[in-house]
Amino acid sequence: MKFVLEKKDTQTQARSGSLVTDHGTIQTPIFMPVGTAGTVKAVHQRELKKDIQAQIILGNTYHLYLRPGLDTLEKAGGLHQFIGWDRPMLTDSGGYQVFSLAGTRKIKEEGVTFKSHIDGSNHFFAPESVMDIQRTIGADIIMAFDECTPYPCDYSYARQSMEMTHRWLLRCQDRFDATEGKYGYNQSLFPIVQGSVYKDLRVQSAEFIAKQGRDGNAIGGLSVGEPAELMYEMTELVTAILPADKPRYLMGVGTPANILECISLGVDMFDCVMPTRNARNGMLFTSEGIINIRNEKWKDDFSPIDLAIGNEVSSTYSKAYLRHLTVSKEILAAQIASIHNLSFYLWLVGEARAHIQAGDFGSWKASMVKKVSTRL
Amino acid sequence: MKFVLEKKDTQTQARSGSLVTDHGTIQTPIFMPVGTAGTVKAVHQRELKKDIQAQIILGNTYHLYLRPGLDTLEKAGGLHQFIGWDRPMLTDSGGYQVFSLAGTRKIKEEGVTFKSHIDGSNHFFAPESVMDIQRTIGADIIMAFDECTPYPCDYSYARQSMEMTHRWLLRCQDRFDATEGKYGYNQSLFPIVQGSVYKDLRVQSAEFIAKQGRDGNAIGGLSVGEPAELMYEMTELVTAILPADKPRYLMGVGTPANILECISLGVDMFDCVMPTRNARNGMLFTSEGIINIRNEKWKDDFSPIDLAIGNEVSSTYSKAYLRHLTVSKEILAAQIASIHNLSFYLWLVGEARAHIQAGDFGSWKASMVKKVSTRL
Repeated sequence: MKFVLEKKDTQTQARSGSLVTDHGTIQTPIFMPVGTAGTVKAVHQRELKKDIQAQIILGNTYHLYLRPGLDTLEKAGGLHQFIGWDRPMLTDSGGYQVFSLAGTRKIKEEGVTFKSHIDGSNHFFAPESVMDIQRTIGADIIMAFDECTPYPCDYSYARQSMEMTHRWLLRCQDRFDATEGKYGYNQSLFPIVQGSVYKDLRVQSAEFIAKQGRDGNAIGGLSVGEPAELMYEMTELVTAILPADKPRYLMGVGTPANILECISLGVDMFDCVMPTRNARNGMLFTSEGIINIRNEKWKDDFSPIDLAIGNEVSSTYSKAYLRHLTVSKEILAAQIASIHNLSFYLWLVGEARAHIQAGDFGSWKASMVKKVSTRL
Repeated sequence: MKFVLEKKDTQTQARSGSLVTDHGTIQTPIFMPVGTAGTVKAVHQRELKKDIQAQIILGNTYHLYLRPGLDTLEKAGGLHQFIGWDRPMLTDSGGYQVFSLAGTRKIKEEGVTFKSHIDGSNHFFAPESVMDIQRTIGADIIMAFDECTPYPCDYSYARQSMEMTHRWLLRCQDRFDATEGKYGYNQSLFPIVQGSVYKDLRVQSAEFIAKQGRDGNAIGGLSVGEPAELMYEMTELVTAILPADKPRYLMGVGTPANILECISLGVDMFDCVMPTRNARNGMLFTSEGIINIRNEKWKDDFSPIDLAIGNEVSSTYSKAYLRHLTVSKEILAAQIASIHNLSFYLWLVGEARAHIQAGDFGSWKASMVKKVSTRL
């Protein structure tokens, strides 16, 4: 994997670049739609390409490990083949879901015991097994096994957890470096900075991660309930330490405004369930602001959902029709809103990239943050 | 509206034809996907065109009247405009849903009082108001207001109900003929043959309907629980009486085998929720037979869903992937299965048409009925 830094903004830390993988090149900054169980919910793979113009999508190791399971994924020739997606993919480590979704678990130095949220069966994830699992899933970018601390989290727990995450990282790297991709293409391992909202821990963690010299680096443990200002503060601290010549991935962030702010702090990659989850609840992100499509005010508004972003779905279906489908609990409502929101997110990071390259990112960002945060 | 009979099979009553409407030409025999509330569930309008190759879709008057309501539909410029569909449409009369879905109702000579299944509000449908409602919805083909008798239904009720349906038809025609389309194109009214499973009533009803001389004629009250043999017997009786130079629409039918049998009895148009409803439950109709995609046997079957019908969705996604999505209750499962099943239904009637025109419909039908009824 190769990262080419193309342009650095002069007034902010924003940068644009190209991340070259064996499944194609990703232009950064980029947003990665989340395809939890091998599907970006309510969206066809061809729609991810044609409408949304997704360059890379995510899979969740925890979900895929439980269902369809490693045996099926290996027989299929990996997740790309299984779902029919030939562009880059990234899988998380499963850590976050083990801590948030799974039943009673035990965290030990060795690894984590947990119960499946599907059938209650017992499972064990360790740094080594999580590397093996992600080798079998076969994403282009795979993540180290870490503990994502909740918010708030006391200092002593945050420090101990971070230190264990670091020790787990070394074990991940040992296993990862001793193995190779199963399907004829390369995979890269990204380590994850933790340290909750404590500056000294974040600095310590970023320095530890930076010196590992991996292909890219991630920032975890943010967007877990802390105020946005704290998220920005931690992100700024960490991006200043992480190497400039490697992509930086801020995990699980966020709103359109969050993403613009963090691009300006030097982040290159984002993922979040917000555009798809909120779509299913009738919340639309548009170039003019945020819409609750259930609102009576859209009942007879026959104008297109959003003409600015230039995709067929958002330019064709009207607000009134989408409102009707949403109120009527029709599946097509989730389909349209998911395509729209994801198209909007990809449009937004594409615009950010264009403005970084044009040299006017700072002023564009300021006006755009205001726009996309407006409640219509 | 113009119906051109193109070819008559020599061994069966099957025929092929073209039905010309102001929104385009329909090649018969045809299957019409059901778009209850202004959406064919889980399917985008562009998918109806490109993948499924739907030539005409249905809307349900009962649902559309309640939601989004006539005011919105009229402001939108009719249902075509509201949902973004420029090909032909047909609406039912709402009668079936009033009797099957709505709360406590009263059937009188004047009309039917019913409660909305959404909010319990009180409504009244009469032959005249149902014509007005369908004028506002604006489908190319609209249906007379009838009572669809349940099965079983005693003779005396069936006779009285049929007689009222006939009187209602005259009122429908009076209103329909005294009004015109609201949106600059023409609408046609189809009357409906009733009479339950009683031969003399079916004959009497078919004769009454035939002599009205409308643009097309429908057969209602079948596929409501009676044995398939009775459905075929009634259909055969009725098609022999309905004019040959007008399209014949068998309402709410049915399985692939039912459709093939009824094509051979001289039916030209079909609609049914089966392909979409069963898709959402994991039942697939394929050119090789019926698949329960939840079955363990498809777990590692990476072959495409169905290559024979030639559409992208059925040729690309594998059975194993669709099984995984179905078991995981992912929305994409409903999307893929709905596109597949509808594509299959349209493929099936297209093949039937091709074989009628080639002159070998009878033998093709016999082998195909066997195939499509096989449980895989």
